[in-house]
Amino acid sequence: MTSNEVRELGIVGLGRMGANIARRVMRAGHRCVVYDVREDAVRAVAEEGAAPAASLAELVEKLSPPRAVWVMLPAGEVTGEAIDALGELLLADDTIIDGGNSYYRDDVRRAAALAPRGIHFVDCGTSGGVWGLERGYCLMIGGEAEVVSRLRPIFAALAPGVSAAPRTPARSGTPSDAEHGFLHCGPVGAGHFVKMVHNGIEYGMMAALAEGLNILHSADIGKHHVATDAETAPIEFPEFYRYEFDVAEVAEVWRRGSVIQSWLLDLTADALARSPELAEFGGRVSDSGEGRWTAIAAVEEGVPAPVLTTALYSRFASRGLDDFANKILSAMRKGFGGHEEKPG
Amino acid sequence: MTSNEVRELGIVGLGRMGANIARRVMRAGHRCVVYDVREDAVRAVAEEGAAPAASLAELVEKLSPPRAVWVMLPAGEVTGEAIDALGELLLADDTIIDGGNSYYRDDVRRAAALAPRGIHFVDCGTSGGVWGLERGYCLMIGGEAEVVSRLRPIFAALAPGVSAAPRTPARSGTPSDAEHGFLHCGPVGAGHFVKMVHNGIEYGMMAALAEGLNILHSADIGKHHVATDAETAPIEFPEFYRYEFDVAEVAEVWRRGSVIQSWLLDLTADALARSPELAEFGGRVSDSGEGRWTAIAAVEEGVPAPVLTTALYSRFASRGLDDFANKILSAMRKGFGGHEEKPG
Amino acid sequence: MTSNEVRELGIVGLGRMGANIARRVMRAGHRCVVYDVREDAVRAVAEEGAAPAASLAELVEKLSPPRAVWVMLPAGEVTGEAIDALGELLLADDTIIDGGNSYYRDDVRRAAALAPRGIHFVDCGTSGGVWGLERGYCLMIGGEAEVVSRLRPIFAALAPGVSAAPRTPARSGTPSDAEHGFLHCGPVGAGHFVKMVHNGIEYGMMAALAEGLNILHSADIGKHHVATDAETAPIEFPEFYRYEFDVAEVAEVWRRGSVIQSWLLDLTADALARSPELAEFGGRVSDSGEGRWTAIAAVEEGVPAPVLTTALYSRFASRGLDDFANKILSAMRKGFGGHEEKPG
Amino acid sequence: MTSNEVRELGIVGLGRMGANIARRVMRAGHRCVVYDVREDAVRAVAEEGAAPAASLAELVEKLSPPRAVWVMLPAGEVTGEAIDALGELLLADDTIIDGGNSYYRDDVRRAAALAPRGIHFVDCGTSGGVWGLERGYCLMIGGEAEVVSRLRPIFAALAPGVSAAPRTPARSGTPSDAEHGFLHCGPVGAGHFVKMVHNGIEYGMMAALAEGLNILHSADIGKHHVATDAETAPIEFPEFYRYEFDVAEVAEVWRRGSVIQSWLLDLTADALARSPELAEFGGRVSDSGEGRWTAIAAVEEGVPAPVLTTALYSRFASRGLDDFANKILSAMRKGFGGHEEKPG
Repeated sequence: MTSNEVRELGIVGLGRMGANIARRVMRAGHRCVVYDVREDAVRAVAEEGAAPAASLAELVEKLSPPRAVWVMLPAGEVTGEAIDALGELLLADDTIIDGGNSYYRDDVRRAAALAPRGIHFVDCGTSGGVWGLERGYCLMIGGEAEVVSRLRPIFAALAPGVSAAPRTPARSGTPSDAEHGFLHCGPVGAGHFVKMVHNGIEYGMMAALAEGLNILHSADIGKHHVATDAETAPIEFPEFYRYEFDVAEVAEVWRRGSVIQSWLLDLTADALARSPELAEFGGRVSDSGEGRWTAIAAVEEGVPAPVLTTALYSRFASRGLDDFANKILSAMRKGFGGHEEKPG
Repeated sequence: MTSNEVRELGIVGLGRMGANIARRVMRAGHRCVVYDVREDAVRAVAEEGAAPAASLAELVEKLSPPRAVWVMLPAGEVTGEAIDALGELLLADDTIIDGGNSYYRDDVRRAAALAPRGIHFVDCGTSGGVWGLERGYCLMIGGEAEVVSRLRPIFAALAPGVSAAPRTPARSGTPSDAEHGFLHCGPVGAGHFVKMVHNGIEYGMMAALAEGLNILHSADIGKHHVATDAETAPIEFPEFYRYEFDVAEVAEVWRRGSVIQSWLLDLTADALARSPELAEFGGRVSDSGEGRWTAIAAVEEGVPAPVLTTALYSRFASRGLDDFANKILSAMRKGFGGHEEKPG
Repeated sequence: MTSNEVRELGIVGLGRMGANIARRVMRAGHRCVVYDVREDAVRAVAEEGAAPAASLAELVEKLSPPRAVWVMLPAGEVTGEAIDALGELLLADDTIIDGGNSYYRDDVRRAAALAPRGIHFVDCGTSGGVWGLERGYCLMIGGEAEVVSRLRPIFAALAPGVSAAPRTPARSGTPSDAEHGFLHCGPVGAGHFVKMVHNGIEYGMMAALAEGLNILHSADIGKHHVATDAETAPIEFPEFYRYEFDVAEVAEVWRRGSVIQSWLLDLTADALARSPELAEFGGRVSDSGEGRWTAIAAVEEGVPAPVLTTALYSRFASRGLDDFANKILSAMRKGFGGHEEKPG
Repeated sequence: MTSNEVRELGIVGLGRMGANIARRVMRAGHRCVVYDVREDAVRAVAEEGAAPAASLAELVEKLSPPRAVWVMLPAGEVTGEAIDALGELLLADDTIIDGGNSYYRDDVRRAAALAPRGIHFVDCGTSGGVWGLERGYCLMIGGEAEVVSRLRPIFAALAPGVSAAPRTPARSGTPSDAEHGFLHCGPVGAGHFVKMVHNGIEYGMMAALAEGLNILHSADIGKHHVATDAETAPIEFPEFYRYEFDVAEVAEVWRRGSVIQSWLLDLTADALARSPELAEFGGRVSDSGEGRWTAIAAVEEGVPAPVLTTALYSRFASRGLDDFANKILSAMRKGFGGHEEKPG
């Protein structure tokens, strides 16, 4: 370990994620200076022991050099603005850590913009969602090796720790950083790249579960009468689709001993236990950037990612973004076969 | 050619397709005896020269042996019922032709059921839709070679004929049946198998056009303001999505000289010329069996058909059959990230 | 609980799965009578305490009525043959449990064939693979409620038990069977239906992980020179693809705190820790039935499953089953553009 | 029409496409000045009547202002270099037309770079391949309206003309430009955007045909014995897969009267007539940029394009770019089930 290990962290952005990061860092005994545009968010975290700042400038002032400031803002413009502003306030050898869901290409640009002033930039993909305070965060880190090394006490405080999972059988000796739950993945952008792909995989896994449970949910279709005409595909074997599955119980049984055990399954089982038909949801599924970037990376690299990309496209379709395409299909069907569209 | 060539055809079912088949067969100088449960349908075709029948029995009576009866009914039960009934009325060496969209496996079963009575069965996949009267039908035929051979005058009357397309450069000599627009594809079921795959391809081509035109239709998305938050993927490069394409004109320009020239494009260009936004359609796209069977054939054969199958699934999704899956996705997103679903 | 609870189990088939099932049932204090065509397999399990049988007849003899015989054979013909043979030997009120990967439709047929003799049939989808002895099996069960109920001691012995996972937060009170790791899913076939969909999901999750890790594995593509010509897509942004990820470490870091934590990830992390490039594998991925049946179920139900089906098709393609399709694509490219295929 | 219509064209790049463009423009009575780095290519076209140029400078000299220079080079760097060089040589009100397969975003950048010198930039997506000389080219054009308008004589010479296709029924009156086979699609980049999507659709249509024909090609799989074991999915219904289709004849029969009539089908029928098994191809399918850009556009716009993208990914997989992913799948299968990979 280097002598200049960081034991004090500035945090900009105290939303869902940022506030919990502050809490977890403080629990590990490190000092936090926190700032958010919403004064009450600052006050709440200050009451738990953080030093409050009323401005970015005050936050910078309250930290000792070399400073480390964690920016935890919703992706996009605001992150860029905060980093730009910090770039004006910080000094050589200080470090900005972007813990949000930024595009790794923005990291590369931002690091280059900060470099002339000697300010370091570290990107830290942060997974764990609202559960991170309790479970710890999985941290995927990009940046200069020496700078990342200094920040190890912070990363160790945030990560779940070795005990969070049984050891991988093939591993032995002193646990690696990865086994603690954080990893220096490579130069600037590498952290967000890995986080991006993580989220792409997440989309695919989620879709796999959702599609499968939907097949179970419709397994009683042979019990329902469906009119047969030239516009409607007949059910070939109604006798084989007469099952009325308790989907919530099925999700639960898979949690133990099955090959598809996973945290996403745990969450699904919980949601279905609360509300078996999930009627409170409309089925308009958001996507928030990383899935798109993963698909673009696959295309640009020239490697196939049909599952991840199809999962993404299904989300688009859930929001009606395929409407014009579908109208064209109905128009063609009318064109060649005189088929009128059937009402919903 | 064999001496017992068929020059007389019974037709059961005078809907969209059946009536035009009768007309085209009569135009070629062959006699037609026609039957439909709807008396007015019979009367209409009789006025154009067909011999009307008030029942299947009368239809059979009015034909000279060996008889050929073309069944042209919407897929499924009614076809099976008509074939069963004809099986009771026809005699050895008569032939039933199923020209509808039956599952090729039903052909195999039906042929086996008719065989003990010496009745032949021919399956004839028939493409051409409402345009067949004018353009001719593409006929994909399964059955015993000798029986199919007898029916050549009928198939030749229905098919578009050699002149309907420029000759394939690699071909020479006397045009093959396929160049006339009909093909004996193999034993019973082979015709409907080929027609099934034809429709599977049709689904894929339709989807390709629809997806592409939808990309053009949304190419102005950079002009619209979209709120950026943690639930919404930002548009990365709004400056590159400021095109307002006239999609109808684009479809038209592709009709000449482009690599994607096709009849489906012609139909699309026509539909868009009438109604550029296709607002009269709701975008609920039907599927009618063959697409499903094609996907199942691919799976059972163990050959990949991701494009054809994805095209099929998109139709299911257009009718809301992915709702439960989408609700599960929203529920998971709430579970791990606290994300509330955004209203539509 | 019913008074006629089963405490003794016949096991037919002592392969990978069957032998471990015998062991786990015996560990719970139940008696096992075991049979396999391979005598040494019988001997091995007998040495651990099972009563050996040299034939199906002897196995039946050594059990007290009402008997319960678990058939654990590789899918397909052999299972059917064993069940047929047992059907001749067993008596009214005895039960056959098919714990293999049978198609649920075969269950329905087999149960119907056994019913006239009063023999019960239970299908039990069994997940857990080679790890089941240690972790327990996830059991998805179909059959008559009363018969399944009798077998609860056996299922409880095989299942992982409540403690195998933290409780789902939304649940309270006495744990349900599902929380023990076994579930009566519905009438005959329901167990294998649920297992089938489980495996379909497994295919999708596996593909999601594999595609994502492949994107990471190729993230250095910008470092390699690729000739630019009309046949080769250029790399648009080589500067953004210069990462050399340690994929094994990435898989490891995701095991703690991330959203994609899962047993499949654990296995992947282990495999990569042993062999980072997996050079000992050729990349020809088998599929063994359930993935196909899941796709067919989706198609027949009319619900979209593009992710699960695409995952299946990718396996077909990994075995070269898309060769003819690819040749057609190259032939078309040559046809319209004069493009010669590039050598590998 | 404007008085300053262009009747003289400089052409840079005399490959497959460029030479034919020169020929077709000259056939319409316009003068061509041609240049290529390969002197023999210049000589060949000069012998057919073009004015040869030994350098870009000479080409510019030999044209009268306002000049129009068509650049027809393989995508990527060389096009950019030629445009840069021409930008130094041309004068205000001259026009550069990029007829190659450039990325529309490069058009936007190039037009902006030329604007300060008053040089116009027009992008012209050009479809038609090696057949364009005979059939004419489908032209998709982007640029300033007035500049595009001046070039109409050139575009009209290159396009197939109204008679190349039957009129779309919904159209009447004087044929629009699109009905001639060229279209001003919008501002700079619009032409290549439309061409990009055209090629994306082409990928999807090609895959639809290829997948379908592969299903036919494997329809005899029930005739072949396949060993059944736990690693191999059994063929469920071998009796339904005993067809030996003549795929070349099937492709031919579809050319007349069917719904999937298309130029791509024509090319396929020709290729299969020459070589039914296409054994001269290895099945490594290239992609050349537009398919990738189309997928990226879909992702960035947020509209689903699963068919187009899956078609692209299948090409990647045909070149083995999914190898590492497949190895991971085999490794996981070994991990949970002890499954050894089966040799090819």
